[in-house]
Amino acid sequence: MSTEIAQDPEAARLEALHAVLESGSVVMARRMLNALHPAEIAHLLQSLPPFQRPIAWNMVDDSAEGEVLLYVNDDLREELLRGMDAGRILAAAEGLDTDDLADLVQDLPASITAEVLSSLDEQRRERLQTALGYPEDSAGGLMNTDMVTVRPEVTLDVVLRYLRRFKDGLPNITDNLIVVNRDGRYLGVIYLTDLLTRDPDESVAEVMTLQVQPIAASLDAHDVANRFEQLDLVSAPVVDESGRVLGRITVDDVMDVIREQADHQFMGQAGLSETEDMFAPVLLSARRRALWLGVNLMTAFLASWVIGRFEATIQQVVALAVLMPVVASMGGIAGTQTLTLAIRGIALGQLSVKNMRWLLAKEMAVSLINSAVWALVVALIALLWFDDVNIALIIGVAITINLLAATFSGALLPLLLERLGVDPALAGGVILTTVTDVVGFLAFLGLATLFLV
Amino acid sequence: MSTEIAQDPEAARLEALHAVLESGSVVMARRMLNALHPAEIAHLLQSLPPFQRPIAWNMVDDSAEGEVLLYVNDDLREELLRGMDAGRILAAAEGLDTDDLADLVQDLPASITAEVLSSLDEQRRERLQTALGYPEDSAGGLMNTDMVTVRPEVTLDVVLRYLRRFKDGLPNITDNLIVVNRDGRYLGVIYLTDLLTRDPDESVAEVMTLQVQPIAASLDAHDVANRFEQLDLVSAPVVDESGRVLGRITVDDVMDVIREQADHQFMGQAGLSETEDMFAPVLLSARRRALWLGVNLMTAFLASWVIGRFEATIQQVVALAVLMPVVASMGGIAGTQTLTLAIRGIALGQLSVKNMRWLLAKEMAVSLINSAVWALVVALIALLWFDDVNIALIIGVAITINLLAATFSGALLPLLLERLGVDPALAGGVILTTVTDVVGFLAFLGLATLFLV
Repeated sequence: MSTEIAQDPEAARLEALHAVLESGSVVMARRMLNALHPAEIAHLLQSLPPFQRPIAWNMVDDSAEGEVLLYVNDDLREELLRGMDAGRILAAAEGLDTDDLADLVQDLPASITAEVLSSLDEQRRERLQTALGYPEDSAGGLMNTDMVTVRPEVTLDVVLRYLRRFKDGLPNITDNLIVVNRDGRYLGVIYLTDLLTRDPDESVAEVMTLQVQPIAASLDAHDVANRFEQLDLVSAPVVDESGRVLGRITVDDVMDVIREQADHQFMGQAGLSETEDMFAPVLLSARRRALWLGVNLMTAFLASWVIGRFEATIQQVVALAVLMPVVASMGGIAGTQTLTLAIRGIALGQLSVKNMRWLLAKEMAVSLINSAVWALVVALIALLWFDDVNIALIIGVAITINLLAATFSGALLPLLLERLGVDPALAGGVILTTVTDVVGFLAFLGLATLFLV
Repeated sequence: MSTEIAQDPEAARLEALHAVLESGSVVMARRMLNALHPAEIAHLLQSLPPFQRPIAWNMVDDSAEGEVLLYVNDDLREELLRGMDAGRILAAAEGLDTDDLADLVQDLPASITAEVLSSLDEQRRERLQTALGYPEDSAGGLMNTDMVTVRPEVTLDVVLRYLRRFKDGLPNITDNLIVVNRDGRYLGVIYLTDLLTRDPDESVAEVMTLQVQPIAASLDAHDVANRFEQLDLVSAPVVDESGRVLGRITVDDVMDVIREQADHQFMGQAGLSETEDMFAPVLLSARRRALWLGVNLMTAFLASWVIGRFEATIQQVVALAVLMPVVASMGGIAGTQTLTLAIRGIALGQLSVKNMRWLLAKEMAVSLINSAVWALVVALIALLWFDDVNIALIIGVAITINLLAATFSGALLPLLLERLGVDPALAGGVILTTVTDVVGFLAFLGLATLFLV
């Protein structure tokens, strides 16, 4: 793995750019930077420490600024936009796709948004307003309105001649043309590969594919991503309720959705936002993290309070204080496994209220086996350590209770939270740990108070 | 969110199929199932409980079996393959792309692999063996050998006539043709959209794009995914060390890589495999989970052992037993935040040894602020609760120490583990928790022993 890091071309570029920035050789740094793809520039900016970012950003060619802004994370975008005047922002917005422009506009101050809107021609302004009418995380928010549509009755030859008129090329990532009727309603798609291989005298209706279902503009972005993944789509048409074609979604935006969804799951468990900038300003990071630490502090003190109820018992049998973290920790681990499985099942659309009971039954069976095994192991270790059969029995029973409660909560929490409108990826872990801490300490110290003291 | 579940077409289909399976109406179930895309069949199989899976699987048309096998997770694939004889497997393998066949072959018993190989024509066998020669998680393992190449000196018109000869259509997800020289070495790509819009009298050399860098067959699959994401690629050529074109990678396979990488990060933190089947057999699940519980038990007992060193202190001041989980837990939370940020930074290629010190400096600054804030809060609560200034001071200092140690470990662990060839997504959390438990208990109980008793 160490060689991989050393050979990483990104790291090498970053180091080279960093060295040039330090040396103050502006001309060379500017040339190096602008030889890169806007996405690579964005990536480099995010890998630079905050103090070097404005220097590098001011070296980026005006023509690339708009695209670079799209590729950086939300935090950095806001930071960069703050440093730009209206004229520079207008220049950057020029030449962007409608869906990209819609993303950018949502981060602008209202006054500049109005200026951007009034600088557009009418068609583009209308399209932008359509795109802004849908939530960012819906098919409508993801879609691009730049597309090529054809009618079913024409021949491929006519289509081929029509395409030759697109002197500026077709929209990015065009793998098919959308076939619509007179009213602009969706009928099917015709793949460019079919246009190139089929007989030019055939009609579009004969060659078009009916299997690509159009996507409703209101569909959730996650469901869009699942459909792209399942059906290996490169682009798909988006329609309104009446079946009229509004635009199309391309796979590059879907990849971003998948990455954001994944980041959200992964970062959410640590209370971090998926847009968290690795080099965000210290004070901003500190404030965001503080909130999460505060929430967890409350749950920690709840567990402490439970322990506090049993102070007298602990004073008599200090071994309980020594062993109690084991009970809580085993429950936390077992519960997290089930929770993780359930959260992913929901995200992939494999778990719903319909098949919930199967998962619950299976997880409880797994938990029964594992609680039996580990209760025995822990009891034996406790017996050897403290030479006390009662403590061994009590910790064995407490672990069994906590593992079963943990599994039960881990399986049911995600769907329950979703029903309540709470994000399981964010809240699931904290609630689960609270359950396993409280149940664990309560079972262990409670049983000890009943049978030991 | 609840309405989303109710409207989920997947859930509705699953329920319908489940009802039909229960009613025993085989003909209708078969018709319902085979009207679906192989990916959707795979998805349904994974959402069914184990006892219904073989019933549904035997209803799938022979012609779809190969593709369904590709879409199910590794666990289920092995299970399904176990129930198939050589003839049925051979039939399923027919008509698959080379890269897909390579994936499937790796799960077959050696005897059947030999049969599959001998059933192929020579060109296909050679291509399969090339694909099998690269690790599954490299560009070579991802690539497909079905592609169309053209020479730079011919005109677009010649290319257009050449394409008309592909009566079975072009390979799936063909957005460009690969331009190679006489020796099969990579020169560039020509997009289908350019073929359709540019003047047919121009030569391939005039129209082709040079900006698409070919991917080395040895490149890691994660780096391939990062490149596709950054450059919005739909397909990209794969070359060997001498620049000879071996095949191409398409975005559908890249989406799978992104999903697997994300699942690996998310599931790995709970000690689960990214291929974990939600409805895997109970005994198999129990055995896999047991291992993780065992690893965590060892770390829990290590923490217990640390506490055990201070039994005498705890006996004198039981409040310590009540408060000690707070110290450990706050460290765990703070450390996990930094760890998560660092793991994601490495995965996205934004964090390397080069800029590690910036992250460390920033995270330590964040941690200094938060440890000051929360040490004060916890100390105040402890003071109010136990009315003891010394305990309050000691827990404040212990929390500061543990939060700083947690942040330091969280920032450095991922790169360190990667250097050692250990997967940070899998081991990072366990090691971090061990550190925060041990340091937390040691600092708190140690200080108490020095100053309180």
